[in-house]
Amino acid sequence: MATTQAYLDYGAATPVAPEVLEAMLPYLTERFHNPSAPYALARGVRADLEQARATLAQLMGARPGQLTLTAGATEANNLAFACVDGPVMCDAAEHESVLACAQAREHVLVGVGPDGRVDLSQLSQALTPQTQLVSVELANGEVGAIQPVREVGALVAAERQRRLEAGEHTPLYLHTDASQAVATMAVNVSSLGADLVTLSAAKVYGPKQVGLLWTSDDVRLRPLVRGGGQEGGVRSGTENVAGVVGFARAMQLAAQRRKEEARRLAGLRNRLQRQLAGQFASMVVSGPRRDKLRLPGLLHVSFPGLDAARLVIALERRGVSVGTGSACAASRMQVSHVLRAMGVPDEVARGSLRITLGRPTTEEEIDYAADAIRQVVCEEAARVGVQL
Amino acid sequence: MATTQAYLDYGAATPVAPEVLEAMLPYLTERFHNPSAPYALARGVRADLEQARATLAQLMGARPGQLTLTAGATEANNLAFACVDGPVMCDAAEHESVLACAQAREHVLVGVGPDGRVDLSQLSQALTPQTQLVSVELANGEVGAIQPVREVGALVAAERQRRLEAGEHTPLYLHTDASQAVATMAVNVSSLGADLVTLSAAKVYGPKQVGLLWTSDDVRLRPLVRGGGQEGGVRSGTENVAGVVGFARAMQLAAQRRKEEARRLAGLRNRLQRQLAGQFASMVVSGPRRDKLRLPGLLHVSFPGLDAARLVIALERRGVSVGTGSACAASRMQVSHVLRAMGVPDEVARGSLRITLGRPTTEEEIDYAADAIRQVVCEEAARVGVQL
Repeated sequence: MATTQAYLDYGAATPVAPEVLEAMLPYLTERFHNPSAPYALARGVRADLEQARATLAQLMGARPGQLTLTAGATEANNLAFACVDGPVMCDAAEHESVLACAQAREHVLVGVGPDGRVDLSQLSQALTPQTQLVSVELANGEVGAIQPVREVGALVAAERQRRLEAGEHTPLYLHTDASQAVATMAVNVSSLGADLVTLSAAKVYGPKQVGLLWTSDDVRLRPLVRGGGQEGGVRSGTENVAGVVGFARAMQLAAQRRKEEARRLAGLRNRLQRQLAGQFASMVVSGPRRDKLRLPGLLHVSFPGLDAARLVIALERRGVSVGTGSACAASRMQVSHVLRAMGVPDEVARGSLRITLGRPTTEEEIDYAADAIRQVVCEEAARVGVQL
Repeated sequence: MATTQAYLDYGAATPVAPEVLEAMLPYLTERFHNPSAPYALARGVRADLEQARATLAQLMGARPGQLTLTAGATEANNLAFACVDGPVMCDAAEHESVLACAQAREHVLVGVGPDGRVDLSQLSQALTPQTQLVSVELANGEVGAIQPVREVGALVAAERQRRLEAGEHTPLYLHTDASQAVATMAVNVSSLGADLVTLSAAKVYGPKQVGLLWTSDDVRLRPLVRGGGQEGGVRSGTENVAGVVGFARAMQLAAQRRKEEARRLAGLRNRLQRQLAGQFASMVVSGPRRDKLRLPGLLHVSFPGLDAARLVIALERRGVSVGTGSACAASRMQVSHVLRAMGVPDEVARGSLRITLGRPTTEEEIDYAADAIRQVVCEEAARVGVQL
């Protein structure tokens, strides 16, 4: 049967993998007990929850006690920022949840280059003796730029060392949101050089509103949500056992398949890029040029003079689902803050599609989508009288 | 087949009802799309999410725009308290999440009577021109006391009227956590007289970490979790679509069965109480005497001189799962703050079981549990040399 549709917005949402759903189901039905209750059934559920936490920790090279389970990446990012009182810093291409946290307090937004990668010299200059938190994502979810987190970590470490030697006691931490990266990039806390790391289950074929914040032993979190004292008192509320068990299973699957899957997705993405670039000379591909600096499953293309919102609707009639940016901002149809930070002219930015491939994506879907995109772009260009 | 087990801790956790799971599954699998994405599949998911919100609103006599969906009741309670800056007030028998929020700011704890119901005259006296929030739960989850929320609402309304007439601009709101009540009591915001109402899916045969905060149009919430701007900017993060759809289905089922179920559970609870009281003259039943003032499915009993932790373990060997108080505190085996507030001596409180019945509970289970409790209480009393 010929392919007649293609979902290509895995950056916005992933389905729950069948293996993940299977792992979750018992905790929605017979194993529903409150992990804080005192009897054997509940203690069993507690043990399974802690086993899932241990799995998550092990997969990121961490200890279970360093993980705070949250209702998603956005909450984890908020929790990260709540650990400091002083000035913070992040790059201007961060996810809305990081930007919003930064903007709610004294902050500096560090510029990114035309490829979407953070400007390290600007970051280094902006790092003052007062800065308490630096937040740079592992990979940008809109243009796929893999950020130089390790290099940022070295700058942060150097400033920390300077403070230590100067007898200054202002804390300084590096936070990285690895949500968009984790499906295709290994996240190991010991090699990242960060002090806080956010992960999301919803981007790695796990359930929505399940995430975690890893913290090094130097970081002391402060609760956003108080109550029964779960998660070491940092995040109260009866645990989402099914969600956490699913998250652990999803991370296991990702770890098993990550290398091969990254290669496969990069191949499919490059195939799509070639097909489109061959047709439209004026098409702009955003993000780093080199494959090792961009997320394998992501292609960000702009058609100058066209309106992405119209392209999305025309594509959906052909069964092709793509985004125009991160889903949150896209629903408001604003010009992307990421593209603006990269210096992409608004006129180009407005004609942008973010195409994100995922585990179920096939070559047939890619070819079908390439055809559909070619058709709708040609039609739309003809309609508005734009030469491509 | 003879009954050989009884789970009687539905106050701590309920299983997801089969109908609820069925409603959730499509949103964990094929309808996984991000409700904020721009294409048709995602817009369909958005529509279903909003339909679920409308159902939830309709079932509580509210408008959909008045609901903020949260990751559970604890977060909803925290969000409620975050809407004010000034002094707050709650009764001393509130759930840990309300107490913790109150204790994190200037607060007054209002006493409760020996039956666990809030002392209205003390509350009235403690209400100052500075008070900004009063929080009294609809029903206490530990001893089942149904609180006089409407009467508290009248006191709050009178103070609000006084401020209006005096030209004072200090806000004053009434919050009620209805989580423990909603499985067996109707929650209609127009008759409650509250300005903010918390509900939990996890106590009404829905999924864990799903809840909501209803607010009247006078209340302006402030975000605890910032980001993409979901939930009117008050609670960011990609929505837990499956969870919310499940919550709505759970609330529908509860509404359909509530009256009959409340009667059935009260009958079973009274049967259990009679069987135990007939055997143990020294047994203390806590909570209001009159059935209409206590939750139908809850029985709180204390065996003076015995250790509840040992009773729980002995009961679990007979397949009977009961709690000793609210699950969060119980896991730390502290003496219940609720019983202390009621003036129950610690020596009595330490021998307390909280027995909560639920939808699957049968008469056979109750009789089996009564027998098991009789046996373990007798054995334990003999072991420590206590006369019952």
